[in-house]
Amino acid sequence: MQVLQQQFQVPFSYQVIFTKHLFDSSNKTLCDFISNFGQSNFRKRILFVIDKGVADAHPSLTTSIIDYFESNAIADLAPEILVLPGGEVCKNDPRFYEEVVRAIDEHRIDRHSFVAAIGGGAFLDMSGYAAAISHRGVKLIRIPTTVLSQNDSGVGVKNGVNYLGKKNFLGTFAPAVAVFNDVAFLATLEDRDWRSGIAEAIKVALIKDLAFFEWLEANVEAMNSRDEAAMVEQIYRCADLHMKHISGGDPFELGSARPLDFGHWAAHKLEYLTDFKIRHGEAVAIGIALDCVYSHLIGAISLADCERILAVIKGLGFDLYHPALAENDCQNLHKGLQEFQEHLGGHLTITLLKALGKGEEVHEMDFPTIQASVALLAKHA
Amino acid sequence: MQVLQQQFQVPFSYQVIFTKHLFDSSNKTLCDFISNFGQSNFRKRILFVIDKGVADAHPSLTTSIIDYFESNAIADLAPEILVLPGGEVCKNDPRFYEEVVRAIDEHRIDRHSFVAAIGGGAFLDMSGYAAAISHRGVKLIRIPTTVLSQNDSGVGVKNGVNYLGKKNFLGTFAPAVAVFNDVAFLATLEDRDWRSGIAEAIKVALIKDLAFFEWLEANVEAMNSRDEAAMVEQIYRCADLHMKHISGGDPFELGSARPLDFGHWAAHKLEYLTDFKIRHGEAVAIGIALDCVYSHLIGAISLADCERILAVIKGLGFDLYHPALAENDCQNLHKGLQEFQEHLGGHLTITLLKALGKGEEVHEMDFPTIQASVALLAKHA
Repeated sequence: MQVLQQQFQVPFSYQVIFTKHLFDSSNKTLCDFISNFGQSNFRKRILFVIDKGVADAHPSLTTSIIDYFESNAIADLAPEILVLPGGEVCKNDPRFYEEVVRAIDEHRIDRHSFVAAIGGGAFLDMSGYAAAISHRGVKLIRIPTTVLSQNDSGVGVKNGVNYLGKKNFLGTFAPAVAVFNDVAFLATLEDRDWRSGIAEAIKVALIKDLAFFEWLEANVEAMNSRDEAAMVEQIYRCADLHMKHISGGDPFELGSARPLDFGHWAAHKLEYLTDFKIRHGEAVAIGIALDCVYSHLIGAISLADCERILAVIKGLGFDLYHPALAENDCQNLHKGLQEFQEHLGGHLTITLLKALGKGEEVHEMDFPTIQASVALLAKHA
Repeated sequence: MQVLQQQFQVPFSYQVIFTKHLFDSSNKTLCDFISNFGQSNFRKRILFVIDKGVADAHPSLTTSIIDYFESNAIADLAPEILVLPGGEVCKNDPRFYEEVVRAIDEHRIDRHSFVAAIGGGAFLDMSGYAAAISHRGVKLIRIPTTVLSQNDSGVGVKNGVNYLGKKNFLGTFAPAVAVFNDVAFLATLEDRDWRSGIAEAIKVALIKDLAFFEWLEANVEAMNSRDEAAMVEQIYRCADLHMKHISGGDPFELGSARPLDFGHWAAHKLEYLTDFKIRHGEAVAIGIALDCVYSHLIGAISLADCERILAVIKGLGFDLYHPALAENDCQNLHKGLQEFQEHLGGHLTITLLKALGKGEEVHEMDFPTIQASVALLAKHA
C-alpha cells in the first residue's frame, strides 16, 4: 500500500488593540495597521459593515469613517457602507450574510482586502462568516462594540450563523487580522448590556485566575458606576485569559478541546427556556451561580467561597436565579445537560470549581444535587 | 495604547492512501483508518455522499458500502446514502450543498463524525464545502474518482462552490482527515477523462521535476494503452509534488502565495471562451503549450526543449491549439491575462519555464509575443 503523508502548520497572529475614538482623524491606530499590513504591491480595499444598533447610537459614525479614509489614503474605501440589523436576528436570516457577500463581490474585496465589521458579538459572527467563506477568506477586521464582544467572542476565532433552527450550525474558525476594542462604543450601552458582558469575566476568573476574581470583587462599585478605566481593565484581563486559552489549547477545536464553558450548560438551556428574553450574560451569571452552588454541595469548595462568588454576581446587579430552572421539577433544566452531552459528541465534560480561580473537569453531574442547587438558589430570588 | 498579541499555529496532517476496491470486505484500509482516528470515547458516525456519475458507473457501490459497515462495526453508517449530480452543475446550484448540509444535520454528523465524499473534483469541492461550514467543520474523508482529482484537487486543501456567477466564489481552506485514491474507480472513466487529468502532471513536472517529465515522456504509450500501474505511478508522483508545494508554501494562501498555476491563465479563459465544452485538463494542456512556446520565444528555453514538451502533450492525445485562442486577434485571450491579474489582487505573477523541470515567475507578458505564440501553435492544429 502506497501512502503519501501530508503535514503542515498554519500560523495565525493578530493583535487586539485597545483604543478610543478609532475614527478620530488624529487617531492613527487603524491607519498604521492597514499601512503596515501585507505587501505594498497589492491594492487594498476596505468594506465597512455596521450593526444598525451601533449606527443608530452613533449617528456620525459613517461620516467619521468616510472622513478618516479621505484624510488617510491607506486603502480604497468601498463607496457603500453597509448597515444591517445586529443581535440574534442577523444570524437567523441568511439574507443578511448573503447581503455582506454580495457587497464583498460588488466592491471587489479580494484576499488582499478587508471587511471591517463594527458591532456586537452576533453581528461580528454573521459578518465574519460572510468574510470567511468569500474567496476562501477575505481579511477581517473586527471592531466589537459591546462588553461581551470586546472581552470574549470578538477576540476569539469563531464565526457563525444559525441554520435549520440551530444556533451556529453554519460557521468556520477564521481568526481576524486585527481587533480594535474602542471603549467609546461602550458609553452608549444600556446598563443591562454594560453589565451582561461582565459575566464572562467572572467565569474565566473563577476557573483560571484568583487574582482577577479578587480584582472583580474589589471593583464591583466601579463597574456599577460605569467607571471607564475599570471597564477597560476588566476587558483587557478577560480578553487576555480567553486568548491564552485559545492559543494554549486547540484553537480550531480539531480534537476534543472545548471552549471555556463553565456555567454555560445551564445558561444555554435557560436562554431557550426563557425564549431568549434574558441576555446571554444574564443566563451565564445564573449558570455560574448554579455550578458554584453545585461545586459547594459536592464538597469541592467551601460555603464561604461559594457565598463570596454569589455576592460578586449579585453585587454587579445580576439575578442569581430564574424560575425556569425549577420548572417541571428541574427536568427541563436537566434535559439541557443531556443536550450539552449530545453537542459534545456523546461524552460529557463539565467544568466545576475546585477552588476560587481553579476549574476542574468532571464527566457527570448528579440530578438530585442539581435539584438541591436550584432550591438553594431559589432562596436568593 | 494597550495591545494583546495573539499567536498560534494550527497543525494539520492527513494521509493520501492508495488502494484498490476500497469497499471490498477484505480491504481493511478504511476500517483501520476510522478505528484509529480520534478518541475512542466519542461515538463516530459516517455519512456517504456520492457523485451520481460514479454511482451510475458502479451500480453496486451503495450496497458494497452498506455491507462494508455491516461487517466492520467501526462507525454508525447514516441510513441515507446521498447521491447527487457531479461535475460543475453541482457547484452552480446552492441546493446541492444545502442538501449535504441537511443530511449532516439529519444524521447528526458532529465534529467527531465523518462525511465521506466519493466523486470527481467538482463533487468533492461541493461536498467538502458543505462539510467545512457545518458545525464549523465536520471531518471530511475524500474519495476522489478521477485522474484529475486523485493527482491534484482531491489531495489539496480547498473546497468551494460557484456563486453570483463566479467560480469558487464561496469556499474555505479545509484539509480532509484522509484521502483514499482507489484506482478501481479509474477503470470506468472515458478515455477523454483518463487523459485529461494527466495535464496537471505535465504541468507540475515541467516546473518542478525534470525526472518526472522524462518519466512521462517514456510512459506516453503506457498511458495511452490505459496501463493501470503507470497511471498509479503518475498519480502518486503528481499528488506528491502538489502536496509538497502546499506544505512547503502557504497552505491557506494567507499571504500572496499562489497555487501551482503554470499554463492556467490561458486555460481559465479558454474554458470560458468555449463555454466549458472542453475539459479543464484539455484547456490546461493547451495553456501549457502556449506558455512553453512563449517561454521559447523569449529565449528562456530552447526550440528542442519546446518541441519535446509539445511532443509529449500531443503524444498523450491532447490538442495543442483551439481556435478560440486567436479570436479577435487574440484580444479575447489577452483579456484573460488582465482578469488573472485582477484575480491575484492587481499584481500579476505568471509562471513560465526557464528549463525543463524549472519554473520561473514573471510579472508581465508581452502581447505581440503572445500573438506570435498562438500563431505558432495554430500550425499544430
